[in-house]
Amino acid sequence: MVDLSRLFNPQAIAVIGASRNPNKVGSAIVKNLRLSFRGQIIPINPFTNEIQGLKAYKSVLNYKDKIDIAVISIPANKVLKSLKECEKKRIPFAIIISAGFKEIGKEGQEREDEIKAFLKHAKIRVIGPNCLGIINTSPLFNATFIDPNAKILAGKTALISQSGALLSAIVDDAVTNNIGFSKVISIGNATDLDEADMIDALSEDENTKAIAIYLEGLTNGKKFIEAASRAIKKKPIILLKGGRSEASSEAVSSHTGSLAGNYKAYELAFSKIGAIIVDNIDDLFNFMRDAQDLRINSDEVVIVTNAGGGGVITSDHIHEKGLKLAEIDEKTKEELSKILPLEANIKNPIDMVGDASPDRYKDTLNLLVKLGKPMIVIFSPQEMSMPIETAEVIYDIHTQNPGVPILPVFLGGARVEKARKFFLEKGMPSYDYPNEAVDIIKGLYNYSKKASLTFNTYKKVKVPSIKISSGENLFGIKAKQIFDRLGIFTTNGVGFKQESEIRKAVEKVGFPCVLKISSKEVAHKNKVEGVITGIKNENELREAITRMNTSMKANEIKDFSYEIYEDVSKYGRDYVELLIGAHRDPVFGPMIGIGLGGIYADEIELTQFALSPISDQEIEEIKASKIGKILSLAAKEPVEEKTIDYLIMLDKLMNKNPEIKDIDLNPVFLFRDRAIAGDFKIFLR
Amino acid sequence: MVDLSRLFNPQAIAVIGASRNPNKVGSAIVKNLRLSFRGQIIPINPFTNEIQGLKAYKSVLNYKDKIDIAVISIPANKVLKSLKECEKKRIPFAIIISAGFKEIGKEGQEREDEIKAFLKHAKIRVIGPNCLGIINTSPLFNATFIDPNAKILAGKTALISQSGALLSAIVDDAVTNNIGFSKVISIGNATDLDEADMIDALSEDENTKAIAIYLEGLTNGKKFIEAASRAIKKKPIILLKGGRSEASSEAVSSHTGSLAGNYKAYELAFSKIGAIIVDNIDDLFNFMRDAQDLRINSDEVVIVTNAGGGGVITSDHIHEKGLKLAEIDEKTKEELSKILPLEANIKNPIDMVGDASPDRYKDTLNLLVKLGKPMIVIFSPQEMSMPIETAEVIYDIHTQNPGVPILPVFLGGARVEKARKFFLEKGMPSYDYPNEAVDIIKGLYNYSKKASLTFNTYKKVKVPSIKISSGENLFGIKAKQIFDRLGIFTTNGVGFKQESEIRKAVEKVGFPCVLKISSKEVAHKNKVEGVITGIKNENELREAITRMNTSMKANEIKDFSYEIYEDVSKYGRDYVELLIGAHRDPVFGPMIGIGLGGIYADEIELTQFALSPISDQEIEEIKASKIGKILSLAAKEPVEEKTIDYLIMLDKLMNKNPEIKDIDLNPVFLFRDRAIAGDFKIFLR
Repeated sequence: MVDLSRLFNPQAIAVIGASRNPNKVGSAIVKNLRLSFRGQIIPINPFTNEIQGLKAYKSVLNYKDKIDIAVISIPANKVLKSLKECEKKRIPFAIIISAGFKEIGKEGQEREDEIKAFLKHAKIRVIGPNCLGIINTSPLFNATFIDPNAKILAGKTALISQSGALLSAIVDDAVTNNIGFSKVISIGNATDLDEADMIDALSEDENTKAIAIYLEGLTNGKKFIEAASRAIKKKPIILLKGGRSEASSEAVSSHTGSLAGNYKAYELAFSKIGAIIVDNIDDLFNFMRDAQDLRINSDEVVIVTNAGGGGVITSDHIHEKGLKLAEIDEKTKEELSKILPLEANIKNPIDMVGDASPDRYKDTLNLLVKLGKPMIVIFSPQEMSMPIETAEVIYDIHTQNPGVPILPVFLGGARVEKARKFFLEKGMPSYDYPNEAVDIIKGLYNYSKKASLTFNTYKKVKVPSIKISSGENLFGIKAKQIFDRLGIFTTNGVGFKQESEIRKAVEKVGFPCVLKISSKEVAHKNKVEGVITGIKNENELREAITRMNTSMKANEIKDFSYEIYEDVSKYGRDYVELLIGAHRDPVFGPMIGIGLGGIYADEIELTQFALSPISDQEIEEIKASKIGKILSLAAKEPVEEKTIDYLIMLDKLMNKNPEIKDIDLNPVFLFRDRAIAGDFKIFLR
Repeated sequence: MVDLSRLFNPQAIAVIGASRNPNKVGSAIVKNLRLSFRGQIIPINPFTNEIQGLKAYKSVLNYKDKIDIAVISIPANKVLKSLKECEKKRIPFAIIISAGFKEIGKEGQEREDEIKAFLKHAKIRVIGPNCLGIINTSPLFNATFIDPNAKILAGKTALISQSGALLSAIVDDAVTNNIGFSKVISIGNATDLDEADMIDALSEDENTKAIAIYLEGLTNGKKFIEAASRAIKKKPIILLKGGRSEASSEAVSSHTGSLAGNYKAYELAFSKIGAIIVDNIDDLFNFMRDAQDLRINSDEVVIVTNAGGGGVITSDHIHEKGLKLAEIDEKTKEELSKILPLEANIKNPIDMVGDASPDRYKDTLNLLVKLGKPMIVIFSPQEMSMPIETAEVIYDIHTQNPGVPILPVFLGGARVEKARKFFLEKGMPSYDYPNEAVDIIKGLYNYSKKASLTFNTYKKVKVPSIKISSGENLFGIKAKQIFDRLGIFTTNGVGFKQESEIRKAVEKVGFPCVLKISSKEVAHKNKVEGVITGIKNENELREAITRMNTSMKANEIKDFSYEIYEDVSKYGRDYVELLIGAHRDPVFGPMIGIGLGGIYADEIELTQFALSPISDQEIEEIKASKIGKILSLAAKEPVEEKTIDYLIMLDKLMNKNPEIKDIDLNPVFLFRDRAIAGDFKIFLR
């Protein structure tokens, strides 16, 4: 872990490119520091002696005392020279604000590569380039060029963003929503220090209770997963990924030059970590606010309302999110019936009916907090209702019962405005609509569940360690040999070159059998009559070979041999066609997948993936998934287990052989009593 | 269609139960009318001569002139008597505010039934009971007991709600969001005039441009579909259904006493109508505001932004909602590159980069409006940006190009507050987050598409009209006979009672065959060894019969006969197991469904339903669905068509025989060259 203490607790900050021109970025940075930072500010500008009342220096080298951070905002082509001076001055951290690097294409990429090369052996660590800078609220300093008039509140959520523009919008919006930050980090192109380094530091930071990240792409997926998995044990991580669809990934690369990659792999990684995944800015906000303090340890929710319709809608959301309505025990029901009017509903959702006074809210909530379950309290303005007094009652019960999550939803507009403001000022989360409260419960409950799990690499299966020596893609018998050694059942098969070898081949495989061509010149066997099925005896096999030879001649294919395989129909006609495979993601490494094959493969996306190294937890998730349930319905238990083991085997094979790009076992015939791969391919990079 | 002109344009309104006590509902109604209504207000109260300065009468019968509406707010047990007086006075409409009817259980239900019985032959039509009343904004009158201090804005959306409490919350919130209403209707228990009657009237109302409905349950689904289908040709209908999950349906019935029913059927109905379905109050709001004016006729969206991250996220939402990014033609790109800086992205999403001035917005938008596509314009506050000036530019272009939908998204908080207010005051929809704008485009695009379609009952298939005379459920051969006549292929089979009939049976069916028991005493054949498969010759069949006889004896089953069926394996081993069936929904009538069967049925919910009468459009939707694609992959075209025809056949059978509750064809074996039902059941009510 990188020691970032001088980055986050600096005594002296130099601003290289500090400017007297108020329209320049270098002026805004100095101004922000002056308004926030209690340490030394050292403006660096070769053409002036004073900036905003501070003594300016020609170079960092001209300044005598220690400097902790250099904020660099000068033209891109001058950054490297300046960075070298900073290293000479033994400044441990630089924040490169300047743009003009990989985000602008080839020229910028070269410039960034130069910096990267320098940093490899340099003793200075860098944030950026192409970033807004960083803000710390404890101890306070603002080393960004965000509008100096913008307010920033201190709080317990740290925000890391790969988009500077979104970061300023979010920080601006946060003030309105009374959301405070511990740190705000614009990570830019992350050419040196990256998200993972920041997560590590924030994980240790006592002022940070939750970490929110806007991410467009990563270069080192493994490092990110490791850092985030450590951090999640201590605090929730909320992730918004930009560039989820293919077309958006294109927009990402034209915008920040980062590798947006395949969202599927990101999703797997985020889920493996146990992060709270949001897909829009609105949800990011709600979690940035609530994940600081709120912890949800139950998926059974109590709904209390003064409006039947509100209870009905909330209960819909609860079910649609896979949460449950908490059962109210008989004793509590009895007590409820004593304090509630006859028309009230004492089953969950509990409807205190329209004329519920603040006192009725108080009595009911005091009774229900004893259940210790998360509670959504709905208020809908009606003739007799008293919004502000009701809000006060809810807030009091909340402070008296810190262990019970209470989420007030005040429906309406002008009539509940003051109540909403009251909650905002008290720092108690409240919601305008029930679905927002339900989303928060769902996200934080999932977080608690995941954070409490211990992830172990799945170890049960003993897998032989196989090193592939081939320099080329492996198909047919050559691939089969690998899987045979690995322990994956494949259809019995054999290859031969001469017709004279037929008898020996037949002895090994038997009938009925399938004849396949094997040739580097053939990409799609079916197109050249390269697969002949249903061969019942030796005569038919010889005929099939003659037919195939004719076809090869017609297609001008010269270098080929034959393979025969047993016809799996001999094992019965009841089977499910699966596909099992592995793919090496450029960011996250091997992903292993199992799905439904045959004609269903494209229409029913039922493939379940796990990221290498596959954990116990991921195996359980696969078993609980739809494809997992199909496995358990279609095969006997040992076969089901064996099929799952195939995933572990592929995982190991991928890890042992970094040159493998993809593995396809398609189809895998899943019978009740066996799982046999019918075709097998290994693609190298 | 009921003529509601005197309900919506009254000259004189009586308030039965008008009160001098300001805490009473009957006082609030009079006050609301006084503040809004220009016609005659006639308070009815036997104990006073004057209420709020108006002359009060002992009964409507004591008032000389014509009365259009009686608003009734008296104890439930006195309502019927009062209603009778109203009829005597020839008042055409009553709004029964009073609660205490079916929503409170048995006693209330009886009371409501009495009113219903009276109304059957009476000349008065009723809204309610158990409602808040109605509001019209043109001509203005407020006949509700909503807090008289609450403001209500005039506008072009009509709101119908089954929940009074939600209605007041929505109306309150609407003011804050500058959403105006043409009419607000609290429908209550809808014992007489219902949602369908209101939709019919609103459909003709020139002041209403969109209809929003909060619905918990319906009693007459067919009437609702017909009214809504007519209305949708003229204006969008936005539907929020409460009670979507089973547990919520329970909450609904304890709350309004309405029949919440199976949400699946509601979903089908809403989709058949072409309604915009929302699932939370937040979305309901956005559509209530935007559906008044905005029309979206293309699913290709242009995104313009000054922040790369904003463009990326918006483009994610676009793809996740099934919309497309519009292609920017070469000529436009060329012109864009002339007016935008070098770093800008001229591909969609168009990134004008962070320093985009109002002028750059203006030039870019003026160029892009020519494409005529819906356009999301994102503004993210950055150092140089000018929110309010940019908002003005966008508004000007919007007014100059009324045909082009422009949806501004201003990200941020304090820095964009004024710009957001500017849009609000100008009545131009703007959005805080990109996903809101995308949802609106998606919903209104779907509406336009559906509204322009002509729905025809699917007529292509000639289906014989079969009337079932059986008084009991039909299984096995008895059911097979019905399907044979209908034109659905079933496995060849025959029933017999005596072993002596074996030879004749075998002649008809052949080998291999399956032996099945047929008995009313057997619910699950497999449990009593009632199915024996793989019978290859007559000897095996005789043995099987002996085995079955033994098992029947052991299970004490006395009244039974045998059935033998051909074994479908003789048609090949490549087939897909489907299930095809029909179910009669209590609210909407027959739903016909087709799905994946066998072991997949429960794990992969791939069943596609259509509501009777099945339209061309629904058939197209089934064909385009996943199960439809599987059909086309697994079977040749005529077989695929024939299988779809089976749905039409079931539709007809269900309609001809209202006593049928359910039909199961499970499995249907879909081979490449035939689709054969392997088991068949008809359940009567």
